[in-house]
This record gives sequence, C-alpha cells and structure tokens, in this order.
Amino acid sequence: MDYAAFFQSRIDALKSEGRYRVFAELARRNGAFPAATRYVDGETAPVTVWCSNDYLGMGQNADVLAAFHAAADECGAGAGGTRNISGTNRHHVALERELASLHGKEAALLFTSGYVANQTALSTLGTLLPDCVILSDALNHNSMIEGIRHSRAEKHIFRHNDLAHLEELLAAQPIDRPKLIVFESVYSMDGDFGPIAEICDLAERYNALTYLDEVHGVGLYGATGAGVAERDGVMDRVDIIQGTLAKAFGVIGGYVAARADICDTIRSYGQGFIFSSALPPAVAAAACASVKVVRSTPSLRETHQERAATLKHLLLEWRLPVMRSPSHIVPVLVGDAERCKRATDMLLEDFGIYIQPINYPTVPRGTERLRLTPSPVHDDLQMRRLVEALTAVWRRLDLQAAA
Amino acid sequence: MDYAAFFQSRIDALKSEGRYRVFAELARRNGAFPAATRYVDGETAPVTVWCSNDYLGMGQNADVLAAFHAAADECGAGAGGTRNISGTNRHHVALERELASLHGKEAALLFTSGYVANQTALSTLGTLLPDCVILSDALNHNSMIEGIRHSRAEKHIFRHNDLAHLEELLAAQPIDRPKLIVFESVYSMDGDFGPIAEICDLAERYNALTYLDEVHGVGLYGATGAGVAERDGVMDRVDIIQGTLAKAFGVIGGYVAARADICDTIRSYGQGFIFSSALPPAVAAAACASVKVVRSTPSLRETHQERAATLKHLLLEWRLPVMRSPSHIVPVLVGDAERCKRATDMLLEDFGIYIQPINYPTVPRGTERLRLTPSPVHDDLQMRRLVEALTAVWRRLDLQAAA
Ligand SMILES: Cc1ncc(COP(=O)(O)O)c(C=O)c1O
Ligand SMILES: Cc1ncc(COP(=O)(O)O)c(C=O)c1O
Repeated sequence: MDYAAFFQSRIDALKSEGRYRVFAELARRNGAFPAATRYVDGETAPVTVWCSNDYLGMGQNADVLAAFHAAADECGAGAGGTRNISGTNRHHVALERELASLHGKEAALLFTSGYVANQTALSTLGTLLPDCVILSDALNHNSMIEGIRHSRAEKHIFRHNDLAHLEELLAAQPIDRPKLIVFESVYSMDGDFGPIAEICDLAERYNALTYLDEVHGVGLYGATGAGVAERDGVMDRVDIIQGTLAKAFGVIGGYVAARADICDTIRSYGQGFIFSSALPPAVAAAACASVKVVRSTPSLRETHQERAATLKHLLLEWRLPVMRSPSHIVPVLVGDAERCKRATDMLLEDFGIYIQPINYPTVPRGTERLRLTPSPVHDDLQMRRLVEALTAVWRRLDLQAAA
Repeated sequence: MDYAAFFQSRIDALKSEGRYRVFAELARRNGAFPAATRYVDGETAPVTVWCSNDYLGMGQNADVLAAFHAAADECGAGAGGTRNISGTNRHHVALERELASLHGKEAALLFTSGYVANQTALSTLGTLLPDCVILSDALNHNSMIEGIRHSRAEKHIFRHNDLAHLEELLAAQPIDRPKLIVFESVYSMDGDFGPIAEICDLAERYNALTYLDEVHGVGLYGATGAGVAERDGVMDRVDIIQGTLAKAFGVIGGYVAARADICDTIRSYGQGFIFSSALPPAVAAAACASVKVVRSTPSLRETHQERAATLKHLLLEWRLPVMRSPSHIVPVLVGDAERCKRATDMLLEDFGIYIQPINYPTVPRGTERLRLTPSPVHDDLQMRRLVEALTAVWRRLDLQAAA
C-alpha cells in the first residue's frame, strides 16, 4: 500500500469532478453584517455575505455579545471538563432550562453542536429501544443519517414528505414494535416544510415516537420562534425536538428538547454527550441571551420573512430563476456544477458578493444552485446590487432565465 | 410498546446500580482558579475544583481571554456557517497553521471537539482506505472506538500497550493491506504512557499508518508542549496526531495534524467536519493564543510536573493509596462504587472539595477511584487541605490506606 499515492488519488478524484472545495477565508464585521473582509493571497477585500446561516444576524446582537463577554470574565474561556467531570457550568443549566421552556417541554439537553445532537440522540435511541425500527425521510440531513446508521437499528426510508409511503411502512410493522419517525421541519436546500401535523397523526395511529430536526426552523417560525411545530400548533405532539444554536441563534451548539425521561436517558447513555468536553460557559450564556431576545422579538421574524419575500419578488422581476420555496431559503437554479462555480467566482471577484455554490452531492446533479439567505441585516440597496450582479453574471455565462 | 415505561426503566437501572450521574452545577471563578462557586438547591457554596482537565489553568490566562474578547468584538459571536458555506474565519485558518507548526506537520484540521475529531478522522480513514484493517489499543477512548466502529473496517484490539500482541496481529496481515494503528499517548484514567517509538518501529516494519491521540499530552509534554511524541523525539514518525483544545489549552475544539494530503482527504470526505457549523471565531482566536503561550512557556510544564510530584509525595506521606502513575494524573484508589460516591459527597459537603468519583464503566469494577488533576493553580495550602480532608474521609468510611 502506497498511502501517499492513495490519498492524492482521492483528492485528484474530487478535482477532476469539479467537487474539490476551496474555503473562502473571511472575517465577518461585527456591527456591519452582512459585510465581511475576505482574505486572499495576502490581500483583503470587502465582501457582502449572502449565504450565511446566521439567519437573523444574532451573532452581532448587543445582548448576545454582552452575555458572551460577561460570562468569559466571570468563568474564563472553557468549561474545564466534560459535563459530568467538573464541566457543568451554571450557564449550561440556565440554557437547558430556557430551551425546554422555548419548546414547552419538560427538559432539554445541550450538545457541542447540532450535528452531535442528532448523531448522539438518534444512535442512543436506536440502540436502546429494543428491536427499534426507524422511519427516515429521504432528504434527512447527514447528521441524522449517520446517527441512525450508527445505531444499527433497522431503517426504512420514506420518499420525501410522502405520507402515504410513510403510512405503508408503518402499517407493515407490528403495532408493539418500537418505531421512531425521523424528519425535518425545513429542508435546507429546497426550503420546503415537513408535514408535521400529519406525521404526528400517523405516529399516534401506529404508536411511533417522533423526532423532528428544527435546525432551520427554530428562531424563525412560530409566535415565540420555537419553530415550525409551534407555528403549526403541534409542538406538544412531537416527542423529541432537535435544534441548533449556530443558525438563527447565531452562536454554536445543539440540543434536544423532550420529556424528562427521554432527555435523562440520552444524557445517561449518549456517548457523544458523555465523553466530550462541555461548551464554554460564554457560549452557553451568549446562546441563552440569544434565545431570550429571539423569543421576545416577533418583529425579527416578521422582518426576516419580509426580506425573503422581497428578494424572491425582485429575483422574479429580474427574470432570475428563483426556485419555489415557501420558507426563508431562496434557491436560484443554475443546473450545472461548473457554471455554478464560475458564477460564484465571478460574483466574488467582480462584484464583492459572496455566495457558496451548492453542487452534488449536497443537491442532485442538474439542480446545482445558489442558495441565498436574506436576513434582517440585508437592506434594499444590497438586494438591488445583488440582482444587478446576478443579471450581469447570468448574461456573461449565458445562463437560463426564469421560465 | 410503552415508551415512557421503557425510558424510566433505563434510568432506574442506572440508579439501582449506583451509576446514575448527578452533575455538580458550578461557576469557575476567573482569576481565582481552582476556586468555583457551586449552585445547589437555590444556594451557593465555594468549592475548590480538584478534577478539572483545564490542566494548566489556561482558561483564565489573560492573553487567552484578551483574544477571546477581541475576536468577538471583531467578528461577532458565531462563525455563521459550516466551514465550506461562509463559516471559515481568518481565526480558524490562523489556528490550523499554528497547530500544524506546533506538531511539525504540513497541515492541521480543526473540528468542533476532540470527540468529533477522533470520530470523523477514524471513520473517514477506515471507510476510504480500501480493505483497511485497524489495530486498536484495548484502553482507547470511546471517541476512537466509535469512529472505528462507524467506519465498519475490520478491527483487531491489542492488549493495552502490549507490543508483542500488536506485532502478532500486524504480522498476520498481508504486507500490502492498508493498516492503521490507533493508540493514545497518555491514558487518562491510569495516567500511563503509550510506547510511541516502539509502535512507530512496528508500523514501519509492517507498513502501517499510525494515529495517536495526544488529548492528555498536548500542552503538557515536550520542549514546546507538542506532546509526549515530542518529548520522545518521534513526532515526525507519527502519521496523524490528534488533540483537543479543551484540556491543556483551556478552551474547546479538536484537531488532527498530519501530512497535507491526509488532512485534505479528511477535510474533503469527513462528514462530521463538512456538515456542522464551524467554531466561533472567538474560540479559535482564544485557542490560538493559548497554543502560543503554552508553546513558549516551558515553565508552565515544569510547574505542572512539580505540582503533580508534590501531590503524589504528600499523598504517600499521609498513607493515602495513590496509584502508580508516571504522568500528571493522580488516581487514588477506593475500590468500590458506593464508597467512592460517598467519599466525594463528603468531600464536597463537609470540606468544599470537588472531585468527581470515577466508577465503572469508565474504569473496571474494583478499581473505582478519585482522579486528581493538580495544576499550576493549586498551591501548597490547597494541597495540604486536600490531604487532610481525604484522611478524615478515609477514616470515616474505613477505607484502605496505602499498602
Ligand atoms: C438539517 C440540519 N441538521 C443538523 C445540522 C447540524 O447542526 P450544527 O451546524 O449545529 O452542527 C445542520 C447543519 O449544519 C442541518 O442543516
Ligand atoms: C483520550 C480522549 N480523547 C478524546 C477526548 C475527547 O475530546 P473533547 O473533550 O475535546 O471532545 C477525550 C475526553 O474528553 C479523551 O479523554
């Protein structure tokens, strides 16, 4: 085995398929979002970020930053241990209480990321529940797929949002067998919603537990920003709600909220929870402040929706091929990997607009796209500049206009 | 299936075995480590923490906190995306460069935690390398075990630190088959070292890659704190060095350092890396400052070793059953789960000393212990108070003295 040749071959394979990723090196400018400084070849250039998942700009919120600074001054930089071995800080406990309350659940459990939350919770549930069968939406995020796979529970995939297919799979199982339905509230690449109420109906009929990833919904939907399940009035019917603190809340970390017995079981058996150092107290404090602000500020959500609607409207007006999306996510179709990359390179170099191309395997081939995430920090002038730049790039690359 | 009854039964099982964990709720006092405030039943009490893995007290270092505050002021609270989608900040790039340089490697790759680093790197390597066989030390940490398991590569476990056994397993494989030897530099519960040089000899003889977890070694050993491999003069012979930023460096995060082609392969294929939001810029900046301070301050390591030696000596003098450990980790044998828990409860309630009991399954039954982690922030008076308290508790619980 020639290891060096092997690793090189794996990298070359990506390059030859046009799938090799080069990361844009940025420094977002606190107080001036969506403005950032881009670092390239020892030089810097100003850019406007149009693809961040800090959906509300909470990363620069004054209360969030004040809590961040205050907790670091109080407790230092890190937690100093795993949650069990000296790492549980009062700010973790306060945040877990806040998250439980946000979702109207008895308890919540914090993880180092939304990824670890999904992976740990699903692998723990799938392993512990005797002879468990997992029903998983075809478009579920990688973190859920990996958690399910790791549990080695029997898995059946239902076609995306297809209730008839899900019911067929449920009906084929003995009523007494433990079942877990795993799905999302907002699918992040197409921006469509999961049919939460209907899935809860099926879960009740067939005695299944429901596990809902609200990573792209929390903070953004519902009267208090508890997510799409809150908006739809079904939060209490979902058994386990999972979320992140890194997107609408603008910090980092992940969690599940559920009945106390479920959270306590995951807390006690979940290996990715037990065997890893806790989040810094400052991170927990900042996230807690963010949840509080977002809960109590419905105008953030209204502005967010207005911004998304305005951008969609503008794109249509300029005949740019915006894809139908009922949510805040605004995908624009390119339909080919190479030109998708060239379009974003041009936007970056010639217009100071940063959008990451979304190519296979994140989306199916032929649906390569730009994924825009307008937020309350993007103003009318920036939108105008964006559509002008897109129009110029569309012309230069001879891309398809809206149908 | 009665789900509620099931979850309750899992919790009851732990309780009846005395393995149910209750987390101590703390606030470490920045500037006064190892002092912390404990929150219990709505009241507070001062405690001295004797079981933190912030081994050098870097969580309260002035340079670290200054970098933390400055980067939050510069860039805001979170990174705003995954590394690929707008989440790569200049502080991540600087930190990866610093870590590569620390370990004398071409590159380094940052993860949200040491757990995710191990799990992602090992599952990626084990999956990609064709027909890979993994040789894993029997006492490897859960994060490595799970990464290996997830890769579904063939795995053979060698008896802890047993070179003859490892060689036997290596010799049984075709020389051309890809092999990965996975082990640690400091085993955290017993505090013993892995035979790094000898394992590198075997790896070279049998054409295997080496993967070394230096989570409890980085910052603490070697002239510049690059770890036990640096101390032993074999850093360049280890293919992949993995570490954490949450222990000696006092913040949070994990990494691997290796040849550029290896890091690039893990960066490009590692799912726990690709599909998760990046660490906050402030965390990366604080960790980078910490690495710089720790690299250039050998006196931190000297004091750390002196403190550990002094505590071991004192424990022996007072005939407390300190277990033989060549490293900075100081285990004291109790030998029974229930009295281990009672001893730590007494230390906490009656003496304001916080030590988490270490019970099965973290250590074998019959070797339940207190795991002490003396650091440069523990002074002589605190050590004196610790051994006095331990002596009182040993008497009250009629525990075994040193042999
Ligand atoms: C649907 C979904 N779930 C989970 C995650 C992981 O969350 P985190 O970024 O907090 O690790 C992501 C993206 O990052 C996601 O898109
Ligand atoms: C040997 C070992 N490896 C990896 C880890 C995980 O590192 P982190 O705490 O950064 O997740 C730990 C402990 O937490 C550990 O003890």
